[in-house]
Amino acid sequence: MARLPRYLRFLEELPSHADTVASDDIAAATGCTAAQVRKDLSHLGTLGTRGVGYDVAGLRELIMRQLGLADELRVAIVGAGNLGTALANYGGFAARRFHIAALYDVDTRRVGASVGSVEIRHVDQLVEDASREEFAIGIVATPADAAQEVVDRLVEGGVRSILNFAPAVVRVPESVTIRQVDLATELQILAYYRRQRA
Amino acid sequence: MARLPRYLRFLEELPSHADTVASDDIAAATGCTAAQVRKDLSHLGTLGTRGVGYDVAGLRELIMRQLGLADELRVAIVGAGNLGTALANYGGFAARRFHIAALYDVDTRRVGASVGSVEIRHVDQLVEDASREEFAIGIVATPADAAQEVVDRLVEGGVRSILNFAPAVVRVPESVTIRQVDLATELQILAYYRRQRA
Repeated sequence: MARLPRYLRFLEELPSHADTVASDDIAAATGCTAAQVRKDLSHLGTLGTRGVGYDVAGLRELIMRQLGLADELRVAIVGAGNLGTALANYGGFAARRFHIAALYDVDTRRVGASVGSVEIRHVDQLVEDASREEFAIGIVATPADAAQEVVDRLVEGGVRSILNFAPAVVRVPESVTIRQVDLATELQILAYYRRQRA
Repeated sequence: MARLPRYLRFLEELPSHADTVASDDIAAATGCTAAQVRKDLSHLGTLGTRGVGYDVAGLRELIMRQLGLADELRVAIVGAGNLGTALANYGGFAARRFHIAALYDVDTRRVGASVGSVEIRHVDQLVEDASREEFAIGIVATPADAAQEVVDRLVEGGVRSILNFAPAVVRVPESVTIRQVDLATELQILAYYRRQRA
């Protein structure tokens, strides 16, 4: 399953004249084996055409459906500091049908300002807004010490999918999926390869 | 290998009174099997103690050495917009011995300002600085259309490990390791779990 976003990304980066793609090419670009790719895609209901490969547009649609991206999902970002602002401006979200619907901050000096077309709201509105506007995903971009409270509010507002950028371990009920993003992990992987080269 | 940063992260999040840890616990927290964990750690040269587990401090040190983190690594960030500033301020780097040594921007209005204790320099200094100050890792936090040129300058300055946050595919010589960070991938994984629940 974690491979599907990688496949999708590869498909999206193909030049626009590429109509079909071979499992070998998907495999090479995503660090999988061709057998894995074919098995994964057969689970999505497509076997491709022997000697031709997979139809790029069709495959992209199938993967997006499987990933729950057939419809646009509304995302709320909490924390309008540098990271939250960077995320609100991040071009890669819209292309995958994530719509940044709201941005929250606790600092009244920030409230009312706009990031792109999104106005910053006060975090005290979060619970009510989340219930009414049906945010599918909440992103936590606050300092570590605010993360648990923000997560609690998202959960209270009915948000069941949370991405946490704050360097803090937070607790959620079992019905909620939370993913912790640790930006240092990528640097560690680079450091490892660096050491292997040395 | 990609599992080691996850193990390390788990060890760092253990309460300070935890002196030993079982492979089962590492496995459960990192989504691996206990057999994988034991095999990975045996490759690092430790088998733990039967019925007791692994010494936390010793294991942490072993993994950091393996990841090339025994010494502090100097990191240069290019792009002092919201993302670059957020990365320069990110608390999680220092804890893993990554030192943000320099921050660059092309906008002369930003040059000379400070982010934390790091002064923003002009990107025209990048090649010369990189050679002299021996940056181990370069982070690209520029808009997409500037990414290739910045990567070229990092490479020219001798930087062999690059983390690219810009939503652009860039080319590097074979001697250089580049990792592309795509923040939308995490959202896609959440969307997938959301769909599975529905």
